[in-house]
Amino acid sequence: MERASLPPTVAYEAGAVRIVDQRELPHRLVVLELHTCDDVSRAIRDMAIRGAPAIGCAAALGLALAAKAACALPPAESAAAVRKAADLLKAARPTAVNLFWAVDRVLGAIGDRTGPEAANAAEAEAVAMLEEDVRVNHAIGRHGLSVLSPGCAVLTHCNAGALATVGYGTALGVVRAGYEAGVVRHVYADETRPRLQGMQLTAWELSLDGIPVTVIVDGAAAWLMRQRKIDVVIVGADRVASNGDAANKIGTYALAIVARKHNVPFYVAAPTSTIDMNLPSGDDIPIEERSEAEVTHIDRIRLAPEGVHAWNPAFDVTPAELITGLITECGVVAAKPAALAQLHRERSRQHRGRA
Amino acid sequence: MERASLPPTVAYEAGAVRIVDQRELPHRLVVLELHTCDDVSRAIRDMAIRGAPAIGCAAALGLALAAKAACALPPAESAAAVRKAADLLKAARPTAVNLFWAVDRVLGAIGDRTGPEAANAAEAEAVAMLEEDVRVNHAIGRHGLSVLSPGCAVLTHCNAGALATVGYGTALGVVRAGYEAGVVRHVYADETRPRLQGMQLTAWELSLDGIPVTVIVDGAAAWLMRQRKIDVVIVGADRVASNGDAANKIGTYALAIVARKHNVPFYVAAPTSTIDMNLPSGDDIPIEERSEAEVTHIDRIRLAPEGVHAWNPAFDVTPAELITGLITECGVVAAKPAALAQLHRERSRQHRGRA
Repeated sequence: MERASLPPTVAYEAGAVRIVDQRELPHRLVVLELHTCDDVSRAIRDMAIRGAPAIGCAAALGLALAAKAACALPPAESAAAVRKAADLLKAARPTAVNLFWAVDRVLGAIGDRTGPEAANAAEAEAVAMLEEDVRVNHAIGRHGLSVLSPGCAVLTHCNAGALATVGYGTALGVVRAGYEAGVVRHVYADETRPRLQGMQLTAWELSLDGIPVTVIVDGAAAWLMRQRKIDVVIVGADRVASNGDAANKIGTYALAIVARKHNVPFYVAAPTSTIDMNLPSGDDIPIEERSEAEVTHIDRIRLAPEGVHAWNPAFDVTPAELITGLITECGVVAAKPAALAQLHRERSRQHRGRA
Repeated sequence: MERASLPPTVAYEAGAVRIVDQRELPHRLVVLELHTCDDVSRAIRDMAIRGAPAIGCAAALGLALAAKAACALPPAESAAAVRKAADLLKAARPTAVNLFWAVDRVLGAIGDRTGPEAANAAEAEAVAMLEEDVRVNHAIGRHGLSVLSPGCAVLTHCNAGALATVGYGTALGVVRAGYEAGVVRHVYADETRPRLQGMQLTAWELSLDGIPVTVIVDGAAAWLMRQRKIDVVIVGADRVASNGDAANKIGTYALAIVARKHNVPFYVAAPTSTIDMNLPSGDDIPIEERSEAEVTHIDRIRLAPEGVHAWNPAFDVTPAELITGLITECGVVAAKPAALAQLHRERSRQHRGRA
């Protein structure tokens, strides 16, 4: 594929949701056009779209499509259809909290409206969320500069990039801002088994931007740190509990342990929408277990012996004590209950101020 | 493939070296017949045969083939041909010390002999080493029983099994002995990227023996331990330095760190021939870096984006402080200089007694 600039991962055009199909990358850049809430829900479930912020924005647009489809119905039926669509979207994947947050936010914008009014309110809110996501990621990138040292090498896991958001990325937003500022020298990307998002998405999107990147197998990260080749680890998150525990792609917890062993700072870059103040700790985050075929097969080729089984948790939880800090759009904060509670209070005040 | 019993990984029949081609497993059981030292050297380099003990035995037989091929030459030329063959074999791979140990042992058996006498001495020594390898592994298995608790679940990395030895295995020798004794309940196998020896070799050979095994991606081991699903980690080694530091497949070091974090005992099972008393520490063990294509491709299919590079160290070194003990054919010993020096003295006395 020729070097090209990346379209937004999630977009809304002429009444359709357009997403970059992650399953086809890096070999083909395929943009899917989704016309119904069902299509969006399926695209989330099947990982055509993945990454907590991107899932959230896609779900918001999915609900807007549902409200539009229902707008000619009698008020009660229209409201019921929207509620049903919201439930469908929320059931698509269990771990990323942005999915629930985004759906609830669109439901809040709809309020008591029904019919065309509901459709217009939903569409306006979802489109606003798309724009907000890119602004938030740029802010995360700016704040993240404070954790980078001149000439640093960054290690990341999975994809918390443009492809996991509407654009720019969270962890890779920090990398991009750092590279633009001339302080990031090199990026190492864990390949991230089983689905290889690090090799196939992170390495691809950084290469498109001309940022030097080297892929390693997940098991090599500790050995790389032992050789003092890594200055800082930055990953994304699918959900952060109110005590600072963070769920992210399987392998993140191991990475946090080996980073601590080598005194390498370990940061989680995520929008505040990823913080779930309703959960006391990471023990309460539901962890999706996916099909063992993701481990035993690649591209439909069976790698494992016949009859051999695999265990395939999609995420793990990194306890707050291993997280040096959270890089959010509001600044870098400690992964601690008091700091997150204060952040939450400030955010709530801002929202009330705006409303 | 139907369930079948496994032939010896390395055998010597009718003047040829027969090896199970690891690259074809688990899909096909292919036995290669090697007729020259060059063939054997290439099979080691290309990983048709792998695992430190199996490499050692194959190299010993390779040198015997070279001595046989040279036996009609004049004495000086015969001796030179054997020395050249020894150098070729030693250059096949850099990390596994058994390769050098085995070649030197056959050279020692040849001594000053040349021609047919040299050929006979080399063949007898190499064949004795094959038989000794299986005896040693059974002894490792028996001694390893002392580190297992009733109903335990064992995690292993890469393949230190029958397929990495002539038969029975080192780490998997302990697993086999433990399963036969009714104390091992379940085995978890790290898939072991990049070459997937855990998924394709370990899971395959344990399944053949009816031992329950579940494959996980390498990044999931820490999360599995967090859930208290692992009682003990047992891995093999390619070289152990005199201070107890152990080189093994990339990812082993990370596994040792996460095992310590969860207070899970971490054992290295290896024959004493893997201990290199000439090296003060693991810093002196040469680590092979292999082609990045092992990471970026699977089965010749390119997985990584075009132009993206990978770093591919084949091994890493686990410092002695993270190793609970070494399981050898002489017993379980501490990974400490004094314990290894004593083991070495005892072994030397036994060898002198035998000679």
